[in-house]
Amino acid sequence: MILAIDVGGTKMAAGLVAHDGTVITSRRAATPQNADAETLWDTLTALIDPLSARAEGVGVGCGGPMTWPDGEVSPLNMPGWRGFPLRARLSGRFPGLPVRLHNDAICLAIAEHWQGAGRGSADMLGMVVSTGVGGGLILDGRLINGGTGNAGHIGHVVVESDGGPRCGCGGHGCLEAVARGPALTAWALSQGWTPAPPDAEDPPADSEGAYQEDRAVTGRALAADALAGDPVALLAMRRAGRALGIAIASATHLCDLDLVTIGGGLSQAGEPLFGPLEEALRDHARMGFARRLKVMPAALGQEAGLVGAAALLLAGGTYWPSCP
Amino acid sequence: MILAIDVGGTKMAAGLVAHDGTVITSRRAATPQNADAETLWDTLTALIDPLSARAEGVGVGCGGPMTWPDGEVSPLNMPGWRGFPLRARLSGRFPGLPVRLHNDAICLAIAEHWQGAGRGSADMLGMVVSTGVGGGLILDGRLINGGTGNAGHIGHVVVESDGGPRCGCGGHGCLEAVARGPALTAWALSQGWTPAPPDAEDPPADSEGAYQEDRAVTGRALAADALAGDPVALLAMRRAGRALGIAIASATHLCDLDLVTIGGGLSQAGEPLFGPLEEALRDHARMGFARRLKVMPAALGQEAGLVGAAALLLAGGTYWPSCP
Repeated sequence: MILAIDVGGTKMAAGLVAHDGTVITSRRAATPQNADAETLWDTLTALIDPLSARAEGVGVGCGGPMTWPDGEVSPLNMPGWRGFPLRARLSGRFPGLPVRLHNDAICLAIAEHWQGAGRGSADMLGMVVSTGVGGGLILDGRLINGGTGNAGHIGHVVVESDGGPRCGCGGHGCLEAVARGPALTAWALSQGWTPAPPDAEDPPADSEGAYQEDRAVTGRALAADALAGDPVALLAMRRAGRALGIAIASATHLCDLDLVTIGGGLSQAGEPLFGPLEEALRDHARMGFARRLKVMPAALGQEAGLVGAAALLLAGGTYWPSCP
Repeated sequence: MILAIDVGGTKMAAGLVAHDGTVITSRRAATPQNADAETLWDTLTALIDPLSARAEGVGVGCGGPMTWPDGEVSPLNMPGWRGFPLRARLSGRFPGLPVRLHNDAICLAIAEHWQGAGRGSADMLGMVVSTGVGGGLILDGRLINGGTGNAGHIGHVVVESDGGPRCGCGGHGCLEAVARGPALTAWALSQGWTPAPPDAEDPPADSEGAYQEDRAVTGRALAADALAGDPVALLAMRRAGRALGIAIASATHLCDLDLVTIGGGLSQAGEPLFGPLEEALRDHARMGFARRLKVMPAALGQEAGLVGAAALLLAGGTYWPSCP
């Protein structure tokens, strides 16, 4: 059984994952905001220590950037950790247990490939469209790490060549700058979108958005409004779908993919997102090999991050290089 | 010693390549134009048969598209071969010898990785910018094939999102539609470029261009004029360089590359091409991992295709999957 950990700026999750990928048990804790390194670490250890007795190994997904495979992490939305030696600290806490750590978006892609919509695919890109746009690449049947563990950054494929919106990465015209939840909701608000009052049962997921004057300004809310026929929300979904379709066309030409899975808040947007996505994709991806590509919503739910983190050990031949 | 073969629409080349990658001997023949399948085959066998006595295996680079690894080829500029079973025919002609075949652009990338500018790189894209724009991907130290052997199609990464020129692939805004030699020379002519009279010693290379009114209308000639300061030629190189820089930024974000090599007619264009390329690349590729990318001209000359074809056997652990 693997102790699986998923560390994000809003919450931390941990669980025990069986060899067949089943999450046996899991727990969550809110990530302390504006906390220093040791406070964050204490929150994490309080979460994971009770699960550690039966663990044969520790798998971790964490927000990037990070050094990989060393696992010194500097998650963008956890300013308390800058160059924090998370892998080494976990190794110290659980002597004798192997510890493997990767980017959280890569863990989600691994999970879809191992247990979700990507089962059986040899060449897939697992995407997550949420606060950011990330992904992981499986090619020729193996996870691709790239030289520094950063392969899969589909969010920074260029989709608007003439300028395009400024991106958090410092560039411009990136897919993420157009299609991330906060960019879409900001665009929709600027076009007159009026978000519905929030459902008390459905607070903004993770860090995807914020309440504004008691209204849920999230990508998820925008997607729901598009499904309900709101014209500005529909235009926003079209904007995201087109950008996604162009980036996916570029990715499949470069990597000869058979499958792209899309998870995250926007993946439930249905036809208003996937229609324009397919249209742009088919407009650009015309060669025979590219036409076989399928784009599907991710199949796994909110425990996908734990499943992918566990797979770093449970299916290490596929998802972890033999050397590091 | 490997019998290496490089089949293109303008010429066919064959050679014997030693285990260390040295081309011991080589020969060429013009590819018969408008020829039927068997005429093309006869030209090829006349070229290769005299080299076959000492061969331990046969490696082939051929223009695409093709089925891979079966090696039924339909080279775009060889209409006489459509679904021609080149690998099977070569196996029949040289019983007992292993025959491996790949896309010619992939063979060029392999050659640069094995013996050229890419030696020691674990994550590189080997590009060729010529009549078309193609490439091959080496990631995590191995050639990436993709699901149908078509990985590496950097020429069809989208670089102009709002329309953009129509591409031979059926899409639009592809890198190839902007930066291929014929597109650049057509653009330059439309802007008033007057090509210099051709040098009798320097006929248009391969199928890169044509003479027009006794003037060499080739990407190579355009590059030479840019180096000599011709203002329209400089603008054309800037146009190509920007498109290349954007596509390379997208590729390195997706694949976490450390190196891109550029071969083909335009690779000798120097600062007029590589300056704007670097400018666009650095404008878009800002994250730490992407900033380490180096872009270099290819190091090998016109026998690179033979070297790469031979490597399919001589370094098969890296460049050929274990199953097919």
